Amino acid sequence: MAKNAKQAPSALDDPEYRRGIVELLGLLAYGEISACERLVADAQMAPDLRAKVEVAAMAAAEFGHFEQLRDRLAELGEDPFEAMAPFEEIFARFHAKTKPSDFLEGLVKAYVGDSLASDFYREVAAYLDPETREIVVETMSGTGHSEFVVDQVRSAIEADHRVAGRLALWGRRLMGEALSQAQNVVAERDALSAVIVGGADTPGLDLAAIGRMLTRITEAHTGRMESLGLSA
Amino acid sequence: MAKNAKQAPSALDDPEYRRGIVELLGLLAYGEISACERLVADAQMAPDLRAKVEVAAMAAAEFGHFEQLRDRLAELGEDPFEAMAPFEEIFARFHAKTKPSDFLEGLVKAYVGDSLASDFYREVAAYLDPETREIVVETMSGTGHSEFVVDQVRSAIEADHRVAGRLALWGRRLMGEALSQAQNVVAERDALSAVIVGGADTPGLDLAAIGRMLTRITEAHTGRMESLGLSA
Repeated sequence: MAKNAKQAPSALDDPEYRRGIVELLGLLAYGEISACERLVADAQMAPDLRAKVEVAAMAAAEFGHFEQLRDRLAELGEDPFEAMAPFEEIFARFHAKTKPSDFLEGLVKAYVGDSLASDFYREVAAYLDPETREIVVETMSGTGHSEFVVDQVRSAIEADHRVAGRLALWGRRLMGEALSQAQNVVAERDALSAVIVGGADTPGLDLAAIGRMLTRITEAHTGRMESLGLSA
Repeated sequence: MAKNAKQAPSALDDPEYRRGIVELLGLLAYGEISACERLVADAQMAPDLRAKVEVAAMAAAEFGHFEQLRDRLAELGEDPFEAMAPFEEIFARFHAKTKPSDFLEGLVKAYVGDSLASDFYREVAAYLDPETREIVVETMSGTGHSEFVVDQVRSAIEADHRVAGRLALWGRRLMGEALSQAQNVVAERDALSAVIVGGADTPGLDLAAIGRMLTRITEAHTGRMESLGLSA
């Protein structure tokens, strides 16, 4: 794959597009490692070992995604940690503002965050060059543990109906913070924004397109909250 | 493999041996998940993201080992979490008494603990039935990150020679606590002890054999501390 890429002309030959892709991979890689880190911290609140192991498996899946993204950056001749560094603050801010106060909130955060990331990957993938798309599609699969989260949240609500109100508020806060940080990224990173909304063919920032994308992502979020038994 | 095991007579048909094996797998599984958990907690102390990722990779390797052991217990028709439960206290005690005060102490703990576990697996594997041996050998490989630990410890000592004295003390404390908890396990678990010292052929507790095994493990530990630039 990498060999062919060197022979055939590639969208990555365009330095502006390439810069956007490196930023995108850096953003995704940092997001995965930071999700992994938060999941593991939240696992401390698990009520028993079985639940802790479920969360650890989600964290391990995120770590696997991180490794793929890191290796792709290295393949492009980039230092993965340098590519990730610009996004450290964004995620630190997001996590500081969305510290779960119990295990359930941690689970909802993992579920919502993982799903938002998947939606975002899916939105973006269409515009990407084939090599980048392949890696993004491979890591966009989510951690595949939503069943566990849905079960836990639904039975917690069954045991105590007040939980639903609290978690619905929590879901709204998560979504609000995610959107706010996403807007920061878009505002600060022109090359990345260009890649997100139009890839190699649509250079420059298209706010309307970003708006439409965010609307689709918000709608999917609403559907997911409902599947948890929560109003969005 | 499992299919053949059902047809051929197996050491696992002996209920006492089988009980020991289930305890052994439960012990190893709990050890892996608990090492994974501690590593991840210690990763918070990493000086930078690069170091954090190294530690996360070690944790992910431990989690992979845990999954293999858990699946083997399930294959034997056992509830993995029930098999693990008796060892929770042992590891909680060990970790409570060996809380690293900085990142280096965490690294040394991971390295020493991982290596002790490998040595122990290697000692035990020889006595086991083929099916159990296979899984123990697969998970005894260590996390393969000792190079990173050795580098970090050696450069920290180079930068400040006093570090060597502190870490040498720390290594002794780790070994002392590990031995003390190992003795608790042996004292409390007859079936497991029988498996450890002689497998299916030597039922009953042989304290002299355990003593010899501990001597060999201690010697290997001394060699490893020296490779870190520390006196044992």
